[in-house]
Amino acid sequence: MTLKNDRFLRALRREPVDCTPVWLMRQAGRYLPEYRATRKAAGSFLAMAKNPELACEVTLQPLRRFPLDAAILFSDILTVPDAMGLGLYFVDGEGPKFERPLRTATQIDALAVPDMETELRYVMDAVRLIRRELDGSVPLIGFSGSPWTLACYMVEGGGSKDWGKVKALALNEPAAMHRLLAVVTDAVIAYLSAQHAAGAQALQVFDTWGGALGPAMYREFSLPYLTRIARALKDLGAPVILFGKGNAPHLDDLFASGADAIGVDWTVTLEDAARRANGRVALQGNLDPAILYGNPDAIRSQVQATLDSYATGNGGSREGHVFNLGHGMSPDMDPGHVAVLVEAVHAGSLERSLG
Amino acid sequence: MTLKNDRFLRALRREPVDCTPVWLMRQAGRYLPEYRATRKAAGSFLAMAKNPELACEVTLQPLRRFPLDAAILFSDILTVPDAMGLGLYFVDGEGPKFERPLRTATQIDALAVPDMETELRYVMDAVRLIRRELDGSVPLIGFSGSPWTLACYMVEGGGSKDWGKVKALALNEPAAMHRLLAVVTDAVIAYLSAQHAAGAQALQVFDTWGGALGPAMYREFSLPYLTRIARALKDLGAPVILFGKGNAPHLDDLFASGADAIGVDWTVTLEDAARRANGRVALQGNLDPAILYGNPDAIRSQVQATLDSYATGNGGSREGHVFNLGHGMSPDMDPGHVAVLVEAVHAGSLERSLG
Repeated sequence: MTLKNDRFLRALRREPVDCTPVWLMRQAGRYLPEYRATRKAAGSFLAMAKNPELACEVTLQPLRRFPLDAAILFSDILTVPDAMGLGLYFVDGEGPKFERPLRTATQIDALAVPDMETELRYVMDAVRLIRRELDGSVPLIGFSGSPWTLACYMVEGGGSKDWGKVKALALNEPAAMHRLLAVVTDAVIAYLSAQHAAGAQALQVFDTWGGALGPAMYREFSLPYLTRIARALKDLGAPVILFGKGNAPHLDDLFASGADAIGVDWTVTLEDAARRANGRVALQGNLDPAILYGNPDAIRSQVQATLDSYATGNGGSREGHVFNLGHGMSPDMDPGHVAVLVEAVHAGSLERSLG
Repeated sequence: MTLKNDRFLRALRREPVDCTPVWLMRQAGRYLPEYRATRKAAGSFLAMAKNPELACEVTLQPLRRFPLDAAILFSDILTVPDAMGLGLYFVDGEGPKFERPLRTATQIDALAVPDMETELRYVMDAVRLIRRELDGSVPLIGFSGSPWTLACYMVEGGGSKDWGKVKALALNEPAAMHRLLAVVTDAVIAYLSAQHAAGAQALQVFDTWGGALGPAMYREFSLPYLTRIARALKDLGAPVILFGKGNAPHLDDLFASGADAIGVDWTVTLEDAARRANGRVALQGNLDPAILYGNPDAIRSQVQATLDSYATGNGGSREGHVFNLGHGMSPDMDPGHVAVLVEAVHAGSLERSLG
């Protein structure tokens, strides 16, 4: 089936586009009243995420409001460890937790890659259903957490301010940590491959907590596994995006990782990132999400600055840029401001070169 | 009075030292049972911070246990806005709050620099008492929050995940935001000058939330005020340290700010930072605090790597390095591990040059 709007996939391949494509991390979420209604009806976040019809519904909600250039599967980043037996649950206001966090090397060595079409069938069913419902309008992005980020939650048993337990494991028992990261990496590769087989046309890896590591630990415990995933997925033909909050110190390594695109947060200018990428990869990002709290004029001016920053660093061309936030949206954001943002991205990038 | 141990002040001036000095952000804190006992007796954190005798007691506690090379005044970073009338209070487990956060330009324009020897007398009394009790053993560091960081709390009314309100004010009403930052900067300069007059021998500014800003907003709303403080304090003769979590993207600007030393977090290598500093400033940092959760061997090896990283970037010399963490300590850390760290810093830096 031919896509009606393939801007996003073309930008990821650094091909010419009529204007810069845009999607927003957490574009399906609590800032939308229709999302809150679906969630309320489902009873819980997890009941919604595990039900393919409801996951499809909330995936499509932002696309009904805004001319976004991609849909992203609605799911949780912790589905894989849940399928590995850790028991994912949510406590209101506290984020995700695991009933059975990893405490010993024995527990790590008992982990196995789950079967994608049984234990994670609800995800694949959601992907298939969303593809059918999208009906070729825009591409669908599948995603996974990164091995390091999944390991963070698997060892801590939930979120953490300083990730002390998982860092202690990495420092005190590096061999066990690497065994954990290896099996999680195999699971992530199988998971993303299965999402692609079910219909996902691009794949994003969220290394949400890679930026919590210093340079030496990042190069030992996160980067090699991101690289392994990017290379393993090369043959699929679906573009791979590596996003990491706080990945700015590691961009040169990421540009050489084999990924098609790197998602960056707002602590770096796209001008600088594009100059360093030097045409090797596409870039996705990187407006500070808090800009959405600004008024429409501020949003338009910051969007234009972001578009132009990329083009300046990319030799005057807007090619190879996917507009996004530098991190996910928050529940108290105004949907009207999202409309302003999306319109500003498209309108502000119609001219193909600067000046 | 001559200091018995002036390593810290010498390192800040990039003078030769017998070994690398070390102190730790939040070295006086909940990880120490004697701190918890004092706090319990005081009834609350604020009662303890506002009582000069108790503030002196907890300042000195870590120095009785570990051969640290500096004491840092025990206080809160929000004493200045509290003295400006915002009403600081604490809710257990939620961090600091203000009873009267800033909501309008009128409220901002009503702010005035508080009188240091009346409204903030308890801080100056604590400084005087600590200096007397230290009796010349090690220098005392005074400190303040940075204008941007204080403004974050003043506008939000407490902590925030994305600092949406204060960023919205900066975007929507930049002139009001600059008026706020200007009066806070004047207050911070008066506050640090008064601490110096009361006896503080070095002054640190904590720009805890500068790293939440993108490069353009950082250069507009945080950096100029840090620079103003560093330059205003030059004539005092007390070295000024600017620390900022997430300040790695801005190091080149900070090196040119006029500060004597820049404190860096662990997302940058000291080798890289020292090379870029090129002898212009001293550097303070930057061990990942989570390393303290590792075992003693891991701590020793990471301390040595940090010491050597600095020396490698500093032309083979350890001069101009103050060892510290890249961020504050956490309540669940083991005091025994702090002893290992401090001993490893001193022992691992006795040889003046590498290799």
